[in-house]
Amino acid sequence: MFYHIKELQYHAKPERPDPVYAKKLQEVLGGQFGEISVAMQYLFQGWNTRGDGKYRDLLMDTGTEELAHIEMLSTMIARLLDGAPVGAQEEAAKDPVLEAILGGMNPQHVIVSGLGAMPADSVGNRWTADYIIASGNLLADFRANLTAESQGRLQVARLYNETTDPGVRDMLAWLLARDTMHQNQWIAAIRELESKENIVVPSTFPKHLEKQEVSYVLFNFSDGDQSAKGRWASGPSMDGQGTFQYVKNPQPFAKKPKLKPAPPYIYNTPPSVMRQDQIPPSLS
Amino acid sequence: MFYHIKELQYHAKPERPDPVYAKKLQEVLGGQFGEISVAMQYLFQGWNTRGDGKYRDLLMDTGTEELAHIEMLSTMIARLLDGAPVGAQEEAAKDPVLEAILGGMNPQHVIVSGLGAMPADSVGNRWTADYIIASGNLLADFRANLTAESQGRLQVARLYNETTDPGVRDMLAWLLARDTMHQNQWIAAIRELESKENIVVPSTFPKHLEKQEVSYVLFNFSDGDQSAKGRWASGPSMDGQGTFQYVKNPQPFAKKPKLKPAPPYIYNTPPSVMRQDQIPPSLS
Amino acid sequence: MFYHIKELQYHAKPERPDPVYAKKLQEVLGGQFGEISVAMQYLFQGWNTRGDGKYRDLLMDTGTEELAHIEMLSTMIARLLDGAPVGAQEEAAKDPVLEAILGGMNPQHVIVSGLGAMPADSVGNRWTADYIIASGNLLADFRANLTAESQGRLQVARLYNETTDPGVRDMLAWLLARDTMHQNQWIAAIRELESKENIVVPSTFPKHLEKQEVSYVLFNFSDGDQSAKGRWASGPSMDGQGTFQYVKNPQPFAKKPKLKPAPPYIYNTPPSVMRQDQIPPSLS
Amino acid sequence: MFYHIKELQYHAKPERPDPVYAKKLQEVLGGQFGEISVAMQYLFQGWNTRGDGKYRDLLMDTGTEELAHIEMLSTMIARLLDGAPVGAQEEAAKDPVLEAILGGMNPQHVIVSGLGAMPADSVGNRWTADYIIASGNLLADFRANLTAESQGRLQVARLYNETTDPGVRDMLAWLLARDTMHQNQWIAAIRELESKENIVVPSTFPKHLEKQEVSYVLFNFSDGDQSAKGRWASGPSMDGQGTFQYVKNPQPFAKKPKLKPAPPYIYNTPPSVMRQDQIPPSLS
Amino acid sequence: MFYHIKELQYHAKPERPDPVYAKKLQEVLGGQFGEISVAMQYLFQGWNTRGDGKYRDLLMDTGTEELAHIEMLSTMIARLLDGAPVGAQEEAAKDPVLEAILGGMNPQHVIVSGLGAMPADSVGNRWTADYIIASGNLLADFRANLTAESQGRLQVARLYNETTDPGVRDMLAWLLARDTMHQNQWIAAIRELESKENIVVPSTFPKHLEKQEVSYVLFNFSDGDQSAKGRWASGPSMDGQGTFQYVKNPQPFAKKPKLKPAPPYIYNTPPSVMRQDQIPPSLS
Amino acid sequence: MFYHIKELQYHAKPERPDPVYAKKLQEVLGGQFGEISVAMQYLFQGWNTRGDGKYRDLLMDTGTEELAHIEMLSTMIARLLDGAPVGAQEEAAKDPVLEAILGGMNPQHVIVSGLGAMPADSVGNRWTADYIIASGNLLADFRANLTAESQGRLQVARLYNETTDPGVRDMLAWLLARDTMHQNQWIAAIRELESKENIVVPSTFPKHLEKQEVSYVLFNFSDGDQSAKGRWASGPSMDGQGTFQYVKNPQPFAKKPKLKPAPPYIYNTPPSVMRQDQIPPSLS
Repeated sequence: MFYHIKELQYHAKPERPDPVYAKKLQEVLGGQFGEISVAMQYLFQGWNTRGDGKYRDLLMDTGTEELAHIEMLSTMIARLLDGAPVGAQEEAAKDPVLEAILGGMNPQHVIVSGLGAMPADSVGNRWTADYIIASGNLLADFRANLTAESQGRLQVARLYNETTDPGVRDMLAWLLARDTMHQNQWIAAIRELESKENIVVPSTFPKHLEKQEVSYVLFNFSDGDQSAKGRWASGPSMDGQGTFQYVKNPQPFAKKPKLKPAPPYIYNTPPSVMRQDQIPPSLS
Repeated sequence: MFYHIKELQYHAKPERPDPVYAKKLQEVLGGQFGEISVAMQYLFQGWNTRGDGKYRDLLMDTGTEELAHIEMLSTMIARLLDGAPVGAQEEAAKDPVLEAILGGMNPQHVIVSGLGAMPADSVGNRWTADYIIASGNLLADFRANLTAESQGRLQVARLYNETTDPGVRDMLAWLLARDTMHQNQWIAAIRELESKENIVVPSTFPKHLEKQEVSYVLFNFSDGDQSAKGRWASGPSMDGQGTFQYVKNPQPFAKKPKLKPAPPYIYNTPPSVMRQDQIPPSLS
Repeated sequence: MFYHIKELQYHAKPERPDPVYAKKLQEVLGGQFGEISVAMQYLFQGWNTRGDGKYRDLLMDTGTEELAHIEMLSTMIARLLDGAPVGAQEEAAKDPVLEAILGGMNPQHVIVSGLGAMPADSVGNRWTADYIIASGNLLADFRANLTAESQGRLQVARLYNETTDPGVRDMLAWLLARDTMHQNQWIAAIRELESKENIVVPSTFPKHLEKQEVSYVLFNFSDGDQSAKGRWASGPSMDGQGTFQYVKNPQPFAKKPKLKPAPPYIYNTPPSVMRQDQIPPSLS
Repeated sequence: MFYHIKELQYHAKPERPDPVYAKKLQEVLGGQFGEISVAMQYLFQGWNTRGDGKYRDLLMDTGTEELAHIEMLSTMIARLLDGAPVGAQEEAAKDPVLEAILGGMNPQHVIVSGLGAMPADSVGNRWTADYIIASGNLLADFRANLTAESQGRLQVARLYNETTDPGVRDMLAWLLARDTMHQNQWIAAIRELESKENIVVPSTFPKHLEKQEVSYVLFNFSDGDQSAKGRWASGPSMDGQGTFQYVKNPQPFAKKPKLKPAPPYIYNTPPSVMRQDQIPPSLS
Repeated sequence: MFYHIKELQYHAKPERPDPVYAKKLQEVLGGQFGEISVAMQYLFQGWNTRGDGKYRDLLMDTGTEELAHIEMLSTMIARLLDGAPVGAQEEAAKDPVLEAILGGMNPQHVIVSGLGAMPADSVGNRWTADYIIASGNLLADFRANLTAESQGRLQVARLYNETTDPGVRDMLAWLLARDTMHQNQWIAAIRELESKENIVVPSTFPKHLEKQEVSYVLFNFSDGDQSAKGRWASGPSMDGQGTFQYVKNPQPFAKKPKLKPAPPYIYNTPPSVMRQDQIPPSLS
Repeated sequence: MFYHIKELQYHAKPERPDPVYAKKLQEVLGGQFGEISVAMQYLFQGWNTRGDGKYRDLLMDTGTEELAHIEMLSTMIARLLDGAPVGAQEEAAKDPVLEAILGGMNPQHVIVSGLGAMPADSVGNRWTADYIIASGNLLADFRANLTAESQGRLQVARLYNETTDPGVRDMLAWLLARDTMHQNQWIAAIRELESKENIVVPSTFPKHLEKQEVSYVLFNFSDGDQSAKGRWASGPSMDGQGTFQYVKNPQPFAKKPKLKPAPPYIYNTPPSVMRQDQIPPSLS
């Protein structure tokens, strides 16, 4: 169960409105690696954790904090939209600053949300749960979390350079720091799980059931052999259970497949037609 | 540029048709962490790599192999659908085996694809590029790749147990081994990049610009303190640049926000209405 | 900013697992009118409210409660999935109860979420922000909220009848009661705003700018005149500013449109081709 | 069955082309609350109405009219795109008016639709049936209809101010008036159903089966008590069957949940790992 | 502008309810090639036709008819759902017929639509405008129309065999015939446009601007040379303006690309890291 | 199985960066008819072809070539984005060229992909498998292929005119030529299948089972009779098995449908309410 207090976790006040930047900032609110994604991902992982304890607690701590980040970003975006101009483009074209604003805004910030933040990214794609995962396997999921915090911090860093507003930069500096922590924390948790289990997920699937002769082989499917120079191409494997091998000219292990015809009630191309490889006389 | 040979990388032949399993197997072909996802993710990362060399080569090697896995799974699914029954449910209900097949199949395997594989997951959601990422930052992206291979291998392991068909299991054993390699290789590449850069992505963003006082703090937003027992709550941070701290009762850093009214031409709720907190006499 | 406590707002414990019902119950978690929708809708409306006061507070109160409902449903679904069977369909076909379970489950509850709840509906569509709205106009938005609670309670009522499990029914009885409150509260808030403004949204758009001769007219575009028997077809309009009229045989107000040809650099069908209405001799 | 006449219901002719405005106007054609949404929503509700009579007739009347509105908007958008410029951005940059047009257009209006309207919103999201509902419960559905007409009229009002073209404004004045009627008519229909049934949807679910002790309670999950000042916090409930209560400090009704471990064949994090809350020696 | 009459274009009455078949039949209502797709596609093409005349008229004729097909299918689906059973799975498992029905139904037909048709396909994906096209080039669009009618008739044919209900089959026989006409009519229109223009779309793009040396070449990118046996590999090209050639071993025309590094403010992997192809000592 | 070589099939090098054009060019990479669509469509059709031979080979040849086109476009887009400016809009507004660039770019090309190509279209919609089809019936599918190549070439032609960069135009000239070939080849394959089967898909559905009296009838559902002037309205049908007829005033073949009430456990509007067509006294 949740409680809400009206104070913000951190300041979210720009020095001046900037509706064009509001559009861009949507990316880290409602984009693939925005705050909605991490909040929902951590909370669902937390709720689905089968077993109590510190991992579940950590997920709920962090997921709950991310809700506060959604709130900060929504507040910031609404303020960046304060008093956004609305007008006919022709008139705007006479004033280059005004025109730049009108041309670069997200039109839905006027028409749909009435100068409010939207659960969408910087080009207007609405947030979708396609972005997140909660698999029940914490090592797999913590890797997804580290990915999200890495991509997220990268995006915030890029956005930092697209504004000079001290208020916006102050808030982004906060988010950058929190993403530093969150990358650190998931790395810590990953190291712990890897040391308890094994680095290959899932660690409990019986090793002998996989086709072990290709478990540590790099197939060179791309011409050239620069990939042979990597740590992944020779030496002991990272999981300590094998030796990396490099196969320069990978060959197929199986023959050409040939599928049986479909039964007639499927109305596919009839087998007789499929078999005639010559060109019909009328067309040749 | 690509060349195709008609042989399969590995066998993809079930011992007998099983249209219900064909539906499930779609998950690792066209689902969030299926083969289409990894193929497209690695290829886009490869094409976007700014700089030549082993990382680009590795991405192209692996992305090209994943195309062969899409092919194997498509072939396997088509064969699992061989001669799938089509019929009225009422008649089927008299034969429990037939009925189980009809009830558990994906109806689109008959109606839409004509007993062919689809670029969709196990419940019929079509594949979408929302699943993938290529950010230009290889460390961030390799973490996404490790995530994809971890979730993917987990799903294949679960699917292994949902069939007893030796032909299917043989192919899944192949995929499990390849996912073992791919997890190992991305871990190797990640370790290498981490050792050259820093574990926090992006490593080139100036550290002093982030709000460093909260860069290593775990805020306990969830009651109870089990999360304090983790490696992430005390000791040196994983990036070696700070010390983890645990804040038991996190407080807000900013005041309650209050947004300005919208201009009249936005037609939001008028400010006068918004300010009236008492109940109108007619309603009380 | 939010805080989380680990206790549930209300009990979420079934008497026994029921993976088929878990699939159905997803509808009110991650469907169009599920708990994710109302939580996100109310929170975004609250954050975007331009002006402090009771409406913003009410939105935050209710949005925060809905987060607890997501949690309850996630917990319930995970428990309904406890120990879900996994097996080959052919073997299952011998045991009708087992078979019914396997055939009726969502396969992603095994393969993707590992017996956890998903942010998806009862057929597996992932949640999308296409479902929600926050427009900045509270009267418009509260009507959306009343809609969501009406559709939501309807769906819960239908689900109540699809189970006999006392634990599930107990939780649904809670949700039904809360939806009763939420319908009541949005109706109260709507009545208040309607009494302060006007029933037509937006109330601040100047009345004289709309084409008032058709502001209260019902056009009978469907043959028969049963719609003439409704309150909407005669008498004073609901907003008290006009009189309903019924037009039995509506006629167009404008001529047939004829669009100009596209410029050549668009490569549309050339105007000369478009103008030739006769059949070419070679085809007639 | 439908018949089409070529005349438009109302004029749809701008005074001059304006491709930037064409992009914005797409919102009320193919957006969440655009004309495609209301047309499809009313028609599906009509077709699904179980019972003949005035409600079905009203739905078909209005749904059929909305098809004419799609037609008017498509015509208007095609005309706003008449002779839209196409050119290299660099050259355009020399002419600020031309540049504003090129920068603000939807590129798909040239590349994809060849200067035609698209079934998409103002940022290019294609229309999706996720936007609509037809539940079989008319009171629930008419509330959805009132919502759609409220949001739709709000969007048209905002768009009215974003142009000065008399031809466009003339058409929007028509749509505003029709939305006034449609809000009035759905309110009339809602009042009628509420007077026949009850205001809580669905009215036929047995009252005693819901958890009535919380049917009229406002839980104050957000700090502060401004929400206590509303009509929804005290006095008789709107449905006349209870009394509103305000709970200042809401407490959980249920204990912390603890989920059982998953069976081994799910390959989740093993229970033994989950239980170890101490930090492994190698990491501390 | 449209008018609706309440009679159906053709009968849509099953002999008996069949909720499992209702789910399947959704494919040709709300699927990729269902009636919503063709209705919307033809109407948008008609509205966007720049020029009056027979093509626009034909599009409006057929688009308007397809609205009647949506109506017939919606009616049929609602009737197939008449009195659909709702119940706990465990009880159902005792009755194999009941169980088959419950297991094979779309749960949303109960929970969401209340025994009504939905704008969705046979697995529950909601209809999206991603399925359709209106490009302004009629030859390109009529080919899309022929495609839609071909895929649509194929799906109806498959559905015909999945039921024995005479009422359903009677309606499908109608749709099959109409699809026969629509395939014939689009072929007629295509032949006419091809004879007026050229078979290559767009016909007005200056031929000399394309790289003509590869305009009629089949590159054999797949091993084996079965494709050389087709009409497409030798002889005059279909447009009469060239000669088909077969290139057995296609070679690249351009060198390996090498992308420049990104500027530092993009925070991609730093160029120095990218250049180091050796394995760091600590990892080797 | 596939092999990759690092050379490009054709040059993909612009003379100078143009980030605005990069956004537009995305349409033919990741849009509805972009290169991802054709690659995936042809490969899935190839893998699903039940029968070996020239059709399967042709599909694999062409699908494999399209992978090379994805590669060329990704490379071109990355180069068009080289050194794209990033900056505050206000400063940009002082420099009209810079401003035009910033306003017209896709913000995700900076924030998300770090100056790389994305699997998305020109407005940022991510690629989805909703765009493609593989039905098992080659005639139906080849028509889809011809459609894709027609729409695709049309889009490339439009893009050709939106740039003056010789490097970009050189690459587009290549794509235009390849689309010329691909249109020619699918037409050749279609003619061959039509000559072997019949022009109506599926050719194997028994003719006598369709409602033949309407198999060649054009219903004039749109007023006016311009559509009567087409080849489709009179003379022998294109399939040679009937005679086109034109019905000027089409009439319905079936009566008004009336659906039965839903059972009470569905909680639809109660039948009693549905039947009351008079206005309740309290509202009149």
